[in-house]
Amino acid sequence: MGTEFLKIKECDEASDIIQNLFDVNLKSQSEEIPVAEAYGRILFEDVYSRIDFPPFDKALKDGFAILSSDSFGASEETPKTLEVVDFLEAGSTSDKKVESGKCIEISTGAAMPEGSDAVVMVEYAEKRDGEVDLLTSVTPTQDVASKGSDIGESSLILEKGDFLNPGKIGVLLSQGFETIEVYKKPSVGILSSGNEITLQGEELEYGKIYDVNGGMIKNAAVSYGADAKFLGVMRDDYEEVKEKITKSLKEVDILFCSGGTSAGLGDVLKHVLDELGQVHIHGISVQPGKPTIVGVINSKLIIGLPGNPVSALMIFNAFMAQPLSKLAGINKEFEMQKTKGKLTKRIHSQVGRMQYQLVKVNGDKIQPIFKDSGAIFSLSTADGYVKIPKLIELVDKDEEVEVYLFTK
Amino acid sequence: MGTEFLKIKECDEASDIIQNLFDVNLKSQSEEIPVAEAYGRILFEDVYSRIDFPPFDKALKDGFAILSSDSFGASEETPKTLEVVDFLEAGSTSDKKVESGKCIEISTGAAMPEGSDAVVMVEYAEKRDGEVDLLTSVTPTQDVASKGSDIGESSLILEKGDFLNPGKIGVLLSQGFETIEVYKKPSVGILSSGNEITLQGEELEYGKIYDVNGGMIKNAAVSYGADAKFLGVMRDDYEEVKEKITKSLKEVDILFCSGGTSAGLGDVLKHVLDELGQVHIHGISVQPGKPTIVGVINSKLIIGLPGNPVSALMIFNAFMAQPLSKLAGINKEFEMQKTKGKLTKRIHSQVGRMQYQLVKVNGDKIQPIFKDSGAIFSLSTADGYVKIPKLIELVDKDEEVEVYLFTK
Repeated sequence: MGTEFLKIKECDEASDIIQNLFDVNLKSQSEEIPVAEAYGRILFEDVYSRIDFPPFDKALKDGFAILSSDSFGASEETPKTLEVVDFLEAGSTSDKKVESGKCIEISTGAAMPEGSDAVVMVEYAEKRDGEVDLLTSVTPTQDVASKGSDIGESSLILEKGDFLNPGKIGVLLSQGFETIEVYKKPSVGILSSGNEITLQGEELEYGKIYDVNGGMIKNAAVSYGADAKFLGVMRDDYEEVKEKITKSLKEVDILFCSGGTSAGLGDVLKHVLDELGQVHIHGISVQPGKPTIVGVINSKLIIGLPGNPVSALMIFNAFMAQPLSKLAGINKEFEMQKTKGKLTKRIHSQVGRMQYQLVKVNGDKIQPIFKDSGAIFSLSTADGYVKIPKLIELVDKDEEVEVYLFTK
Repeated sequence: MGTEFLKIKECDEASDIIQNLFDVNLKSQSEEIPVAEAYGRILFEDVYSRIDFPPFDKALKDGFAILSSDSFGASEETPKTLEVVDFLEAGSTSDKKVESGKCIEISTGAAMPEGSDAVVMVEYAEKRDGEVDLLTSVTPTQDVASKGSDIGESSLILEKGDFLNPGKIGVLLSQGFETIEVYKKPSVGILSSGNEITLQGEELEYGKIYDVNGGMIKNAAVSYGADAKFLGVMRDDYEEVKEKITKSLKEVDILFCSGGTSAGLGDVLKHVLDELGQVHIHGISVQPGKPTIVGVINSKLIIGLPGNPVSALMIFNAFMAQPLSKLAGINKEFEMQKTKGKLTKRIHSQVGRMQYQLVKVNGDKIQPIFKDSGAIFSLSTADGYVKIPKLIELVDKDEEVEVYLFTK
């Protein structure tokens, strides 16, 4: 542990370091939940069938369960007559057997009675008291789903990483699963810092602003599969930051801190991390978001986001969304959504660091949102951002660009 | 009320009737929730700003708040010297004023002190004891965000129907909103029926199957924005169905019932609806899903889905997802996702009714899943369905088809 001289990191290098810190320090965990509550969760295990499905030879039509050979040669002109010895509804059983000359009336979904091997649909039969005329001939297994024909016992039916949609939940239920192991949502906390930060509901004194990052980053983490909670506001004071971080790490595995000012928290956080753990990133060569800090304390991740909300959300999306999604098990599904289009206005960029330019997407028109980075309102209109590499000074109007879309 | 002779409905007609029954009988409702818990919810009201943002003239850089005219002509060669009378951090105020010859050192985010109109960045200043040399000239308002420049008070900032993503939540928080009115999730219940139905966790007797539709349709409703709950299993018995429906309608506004067999529940449900309310649809000309029933009791909707899970989920997606989403406020976002591709195999269809064919999508290859409609396992592999109009008998291999995708 201890201080280490850290050069500002290029974007790709920073992404690799962050992913590696997630991989090394945090393991995906599982939890058992009711299948009926599982929509949107991710399977943590391969699932094998417990029973044959259907669990018995099943009638697929309403009609008469017969020995198929009894029907051979039957037609409207030359019907074959059988004795009807019972009636079977779905879910019922009969102590009667089917044998040559006899049949059992049967409902869709019922188990085929002993001795029968086919169903003659009710449309091709004429029933009278205790007897039925078959008007058609059927082949063995006709209108019968054999036991295990859909799913055989001990077959792989779902795989680790599967997103549990209604259909997959249906498959689990059909096999009698009450509960299932899914990825546990990563445990994330957010601390806001800054002497100017006021909580909603409190009176806003002159010179102060409402806290945005606490609630916003919490919801961003939720949108990428985390169980996230806001843990309060702290002053940019060494002892207070140290105490709040120590306390928070008892509750969560990943802690986002966002500074009220670009300078304020950064330095304090750096020193606390140096004392309690290790700083791995102190500055990323990106605009906005340069003052980002990433450190580890006892295998838990502490991420210092820029204070201004636009920068904080940008850094969260660009660097944290992917490793967080992977930890949450949604990496199979995760792919940062992208779209392409033509710029409606020229973008100037500072040579020497990667620039992330907020944009609004209108069909194939990509409209840059030019506002100073404290302009919170741009968050309500931005659909995503365009990356402008460090050596590019200008991207011209009508040039095609790729947009990284924010989560909906 | 009472019985009415109902012809089987064509698909488009059925969709129109169902949408109309939703519109006439169920009104979207709202609820107030904490902004910090609002991810994924839909705004029920236009939202206007409560305060100017920023709430004061704000320094955008660390540096010195000055009267800009004091800097005119300053350069590295000819610096201008000012007295530093105070230091202002974000969130603090000063009782000192800036006037010609004087300045106040200032942090990013702090309110500009009285008398000042611009910031000279710390990079362009050399501070000594009580004094600073300005090395550049700045214009009025340079590196200052004026009060209200981002959002003026009483401006429309978000609109009814907006999906609350992290950025929009950030905008609400910046305005001090603690709570917000969002669409209330439609209240949906699901009853399963059938004598062969067994709940997960119970022993599966011969001839019986586990209940799939209860949990699956619950989760499908959740995926389209509903607050849905499974209300249990009932026998296909007139008095029991009547009692369960009457009781359930005290709890929910939309009730899905799914029959264990194609015949069983349908007739009973029809009679209960005739007695307590009105049947509006009794049969849709579609394969699978013909036995679908839609009725109204005291302005609440009762939908009888086919018993077999594949048909039930298909009918839910094809006919119920859109009106349910609209009621949940997500119609602005809702559009049944579609994709196109070429069939890998020929599909035969019965002339005379619309056929929904389950398919799996592999890139631009659309693979039909041919299984009898009780084949539950197809639910875990199907990505959506292709519609084959009633007069089409065959869609050939390599023909381009449009796929209606299930919710993820």
